[in-house]
Amino acid sequence: MGGRLKVEVGVFDQWVLRAQASVEQSLERWVPADAPAELGEAMRYAVLGGGKRLRPLLVLATCEVVRGDLNAALRAACAVELIHAYSLVHDDMPCMDDDVLRRGKPTLHVEYGEAQAMLAGDAMQALAFEVLTPDDGGIAPGLQARLCGLLARSAGHAGMAGGQAIDLASVGLSLNEQALRDMHRRKTGVLLQASVLMGAACGEPDPRAWQALSEYGAAIGLAFQVVDDILDVTQDSAVLGKTAGKDQDANKPTYVSVLGLERARRYAVELRDQAHAALQASGLTHADLLHVLADKVVERDN
Amino acid sequence: MGGRLKVEVGVFDQWVLRAQASVEQSLERWVPADAPAELGEAMRYAVLGGGKRLRPLLVLATCEVVRGDLNAALRAACAVELIHAYSLVHDDMPCMDDDVLRRGKPTLHVEYGEAQAMLAGDAMQALAFEVLTPDDGGIAPGLQARLCGLLARSAGHAGMAGGQAIDLASVGLSLNEQALRDMHRRKTGVLLQASVLMGAACGEPDPRAWQALSEYGAAIGLAFQVVDDILDVTQDSAVLGKTAGKDQDANKPTYVSVLGLERARRYAVELRDQAHAALQASGLTHADLLHVLADKVVERDN
Repeated sequence: MGGRLKVEVGVFDQWVLRAQASVEQSLERWVPADAPAELGEAMRYAVLGGGKRLRPLLVLATCEVVRGDLNAALRAACAVELIHAYSLVHDDMPCMDDDVLRRGKPTLHVEYGEAQAMLAGDAMQALAFEVLTPDDGGIAPGLQARLCGLLARSAGHAGMAGGQAIDLASVGLSLNEQALRDMHRRKTGVLLQASVLMGAACGEPDPRAWQALSEYGAAIGLAFQVVDDILDVTQDSAVLGKTAGKDQDANKPTYVSVLGLERARRYAVELRDQAHAALQASGLTHADLLHVLADKVVERDN
Repeated sequence: MGGRLKVEVGVFDQWVLRAQASVEQSLERWVPADAPAELGEAMRYAVLGGGKRLRPLLVLATCEVVRGDLNAALRAACAVELIHAYSLVHDDMPCMDDDVLRRGKPTLHVEYGEAQAMLAGDAMQALAFEVLTPDDGGIAPGLQARLCGLLARSAGHAGMAGGQAIDLASVGLSLNEQALRDMHRRKTGVLLQASVLMGAACGEPDPRAWQALSEYGAAIGLAFQVVDDILDVTQDSAVLGKTAGKDQDANKPTYVSVLGLERARRYAVELRDQAHAALQASGLTHADLLHVLADKVVERDN
């Protein structure tokens, strides 16, 4: 690996900081402060100033790797983050996970009430598609359509929302590994994979590179969730910025409950290696950012 | 009016039946039966076999009037209905209007539980954008982008979701007429107007016709809500298929509470006349379907 890896750790960290700052700045501009009746405040509370912005980083890194249109990618990055943030808002509500802590702050419904939280989530989903369809020619219309399609499919019944429905239905069940993988792939994996593909769509990768990036996205999408399950039992709430141990408390099947902690750890490393192998097979010569991002997904502690 | 009106009532009714059938058939195909963990069933329960399909009719009628692409319009019609249907599901939830009856059936959360209802609504919003972005070239990419943009803006913070936030905040307040109009314009008017504009976007109306159709849409959008407020106090639940008198019970400002019943009725007729006048000014020669639809919006009894 060392030989192929041209980005140094300090350089990578600087890239991350710059990318996060530009996402933050753009969200700051696009999430409206002036939406009526505190709806804007609620949306901004849920979106701004928090999170690792992993999905935006994947969009932007992939766009850089395929030398694509970075302006379009910045919109795609914010759109996918809006979908992610809305899903957290709805997921935290009393009828779902009933959680009170998120990114180290009270959850949105605790702060603004349930009705406003539901509406803010709904408006954030719509805003994702608004951000992808600027009137000003900032993204070519064909690319707008492509990005909307990728995002909608990953957020909907076949992706994230479907995964959450399975999650809901599987409380107290002992899923086998395949059923667990299917749930996690939909619940978190598909949106992470879509982040990679949206970044790829901002350039013109050949079919082989597209396929490899899709496999990379699938591998780190699943790795992310395996690590999430591990952190849920090994870290405390202060480090996570959200309630630790809640899957266990809710009697939800996780990679730790199904595989055990050690096998779950080995599986995360395997998936990282799969992601690296996909990059190697992609024919893309400067995929270092994605290589290191795969490492970070597995090595993170929150 | 009689002179300009070339569509006969029987002909119009037949057009409506055909249009409704083709919308129903398409929704039947596009709302998935196989989404996991009953999510598909919940979505279908909320979307299929109910409602007047007014928004789809506006999309399709406008597309016919501008001689646009009817395949694209059928997708737009279903997309806007999906947004409308999801908004009803979320609106009926206990943290919002807490309603148990919709289209003559128990509301979705009563039938499937709150969590599933929230997820189904979320997935329906995503599905709207999936329907607008087919992979098969069924809609030109530029038009896909245009339709996604129109729909997202009408559903989001500046449109429907924003209107609902105002609605939420105005319980027990006595709004003046301007504030009430702003709330209703956003809450229901903007999506009805967007239905007209999405139909228009499927063709190539000149700027004058586009502007006139936009005014037509704004007028009937508001008329629809004025009539809704009237029906809420003059009809019973059996006729409405939803709980009657609930705005009054919830102490919400309405056109009836602000203007009184008689002035509200006169205002609805005024708005219909404005809609007719906009059509007259459009330069479009065969706008009869839209002319009659404006009548129907005002004359309906449920």
